[in-house]
Amino acid sequence: MALVVQKFGGTSVADLDRIRAVAERVKRVRDQGDQVAVVVSAMAGVTNQLVEWVRQLGGATYDRAEYDVVVASGEQVTSGLLALALQALGVPARSFLGWQAPIATDHSHGKARVLATEATPVRQALAHGEVAVLAGFQGVAADGRVTTLGRGGSDTSAVVLAAALGAERCDIFTDVEGVYTTDPRIVAKACKLARITYEEMLEMASLGAKVLETRSVALAMRHGVRVQVLSSFVDRPGTLVVDEGEIVEQNIVSGIAYSRDEAKVTLVGVADQPGVAATIFGSLAEANVNVDMIVQSVSADGRTTDVTFTVSRGDLARAQAVLAGVRAALDYRSLRADAEVVKVSVIGVGMRSHAGTAHLMFKTLAERGINIQAISTSEIKISILIDEAYTELALRALHSAYGLDAV
Amino acid sequence: MALVVQKFGGTSVADLDRIRAVAERVKRVRDQGDQVAVVVSAMAGVTNQLVEWVRQLGGATYDRAEYDVVVASGEQVTSGLLALALQALGVPARSFLGWQAPIATDHSHGKARVLATEATPVRQALAHGEVAVLAGFQGVAADGRVTTLGRGGSDTSAVVLAAALGAERCDIFTDVEGVYTTDPRIVAKACKLARITYEEMLEMASLGAKVLETRSVALAMRHGVRVQVLSSFVDRPGTLVVDEGEIVEQNIVSGIAYSRDEAKVTLVGVADQPGVAATIFGSLAEANVNVDMIVQSVSADGRTTDVTFTVSRGDLARAQAVLAGVRAALDYRSLRADAEVVKVSVIGVGMRSHAGTAHLMFKTLAERGINIQAISTSEIKISILIDEAYTELALRALHSAYGLDAV
Repeated sequence: MALVVQKFGGTSVADLDRIRAVAERVKRVRDQGDQVAVVVSAMAGVTNQLVEWVRQLGGATYDRAEYDVVVASGEQVTSGLLALALQALGVPARSFLGWQAPIATDHSHGKARVLATEATPVRQALAHGEVAVLAGFQGVAADGRVTTLGRGGSDTSAVVLAAALGAERCDIFTDVEGVYTTDPRIVAKACKLARITYEEMLEMASLGAKVLETRSVALAMRHGVRVQVLSSFVDRPGTLVVDEGEIVEQNIVSGIAYSRDEAKVTLVGVADQPGVAATIFGSLAEANVNVDMIVQSVSADGRTTDVTFTVSRGDLARAQAVLAGVRAALDYRSLRADAEVVKVSVIGVGMRSHAGTAHLMFKTLAERGINIQAISTSEIKISILIDEAYTELALRALHSAYGLDAV
Repeated sequence: MALVVQKFGGTSVADLDRIRAVAERVKRVRDQGDQVAVVVSAMAGVTNQLVEWVRQLGGATYDRAEYDVVVASGEQVTSGLLALALQALGVPARSFLGWQAPIATDHSHGKARVLATEATPVRQALAHGEVAVLAGFQGVAADGRVTTLGRGGSDTSAVVLAAALGAERCDIFTDVEGVYTTDPRIVAKACKLARITYEEMLEMASLGAKVLETRSVALAMRHGVRVQVLSSFVDRPGTLVVDEGEIVEQNIVSGIAYSRDEAKVTLVGVADQPGVAATIFGSLAEANVNVDMIVQSVSADGRTTDVTFTVSRGDLARAQAVLAGVRAALDYRSLRADAEVVKVSVIGVGMRSHAGTAHLMFKTLAERGINIQAISTSEIKISILIDEAYTELALRALHSAYGLDAV
């Protein structure tokens, strides 16, 4: 008998029929003899409606503690309704709100961090043969007030609960069938991965493959929770996110991600002397502008150099304003901005032990006449910045070059 | 500085504009220097929607504990939203859910009874200068599960909170302007009462004047909470429900109530011997049929008698079936049923010290040719059963006879 945590997102519990379908799915797993704890989101659309009400009544600087009270009601409703739907199928079930589990968090209302959970009441319900249905996204602070976990919070609830219960697996049901080698809307030959490591998933998630929220992946990695991403609308295995040791035959590259939310800034003719980088990036950090890739060219004349970096497109105007403000201090010749760039990344833990991964990337792009504007690398990822017009061409070429095309 | 509890029903918080209007009303009281604790219902219509979902998913015998989890979410939303609306007006405010106040109840999910509340966290919020906004209708059982208080539960929450806080007054805002001498839809000369005693209000409420739920009136009486019923849509004093001692000039009759939910049953030719009444009313009680007025005629022949009683119309068919089932034991001659009757009651604590109240009633009706089919009396109430066709005539005649017509 195994213990499985199953998390269903908003589209999976969008109406009464879908809630019934979820109950039947849970029942099937339980009929196989497994214990099941379920985590649910609010019905699709409900959270947005509640957030809108909060904004309209509370104004721009609304109290996040009250926001949490209002918004947490959405998951409360679905947790009760799913428990009822399970009972109607003859499956003993009971709901748990965040404060009942309890999911203890800090006091950062609206984006609280989970501190700890023993989930003792949930364990007891499972031991009594009940399916436990936890309202996702919510917790309780030490002062007894309701908190919510922020974006992707229900995924976090599921991973936290799976860790606390020592679950064999945490199934995250969503509207896609799993994690793909790359975006199937662009590369028709993209295929679903059977397994992917936590590290790879983290890079994929942070690069815009919005299947799992980064935070829940990091939590799963820290606690060794095996996560499966799968569709609630088809009955097929999804993608398992696991420790590297569980993957026997590792590709060099597991997936190719891209992000269009990039803008490139180049400061031309900056003095090549100590303290300049500190001035540039210190002023941007103060203005809350996140900088990603940074390239500093070698000084040609020994006195000036060019500094190139990327920010998200939404931050570009702010970055330009900040740099205009420190022009006197930096004495650069000109500032060039380009929002028509894309970041393409190949990701794979296999590249740690394989030389030539970067070379294959550069060669493949060069053969298509694609110019690389910036490069950054980590242990398991190589990212390059290119003209946005080449996005599809680059993704398809790299997908073939790394042997990821579906047979 | 006084402490006032204000309760707003579903129509008073039906949408964001009305919630803003409630916030402004609360602010006005607070600006006069009073402390305010507010109790809110769910937005009008929301509870019915949630109950409908519960029925559809949970089937006929749905789990009332999960019902409570789902349904309590409605008041949770309004409590948070009103706190936000108050804050937007510059009034410090915070919400309290039933389990946070805490409102301790028994385990009778769906119709829980309040056991106790110290409301210590609420007191603390008030002491910090905040308006406390309690989600009405909900509590928490000793096992930490959410409960709801059943019909009229938010009124009960308000009275319980007012008692715990020792509030000077508990204002119940609703969609009528107060308690009237009788139904203004029938008697144009009906007028709003400035004051009414708890006992009178209890009789009025139990007789169908659905302004306050009986249970909250009984609680207010027990704890000496002064309750004011008033409209949230106009800015006028309503009706104060208070102890008899607070009413200086007491009318003999304060109000005239009526109930159409009555049906009359007569068993003709029942044996006039010990044990017969026990058989009749014992079998009805077992079938969960509530009996109200009972009249037994004097035996003419010394061997048989007629027994007449009233039940609610919805119970009539069941009562007939029950009595058919015990016909062998009772050996009655025939059973007559009449659903076209109405119960009219005159109510007033003044009749305790005034003779002739009943006589005036009988005389007034006799003058209009209205036949009285049954009579029952209590210390402060005289009820008569008449043909439903005479309802309006009887109410208007009695309203004049007892000097209640508006000048």
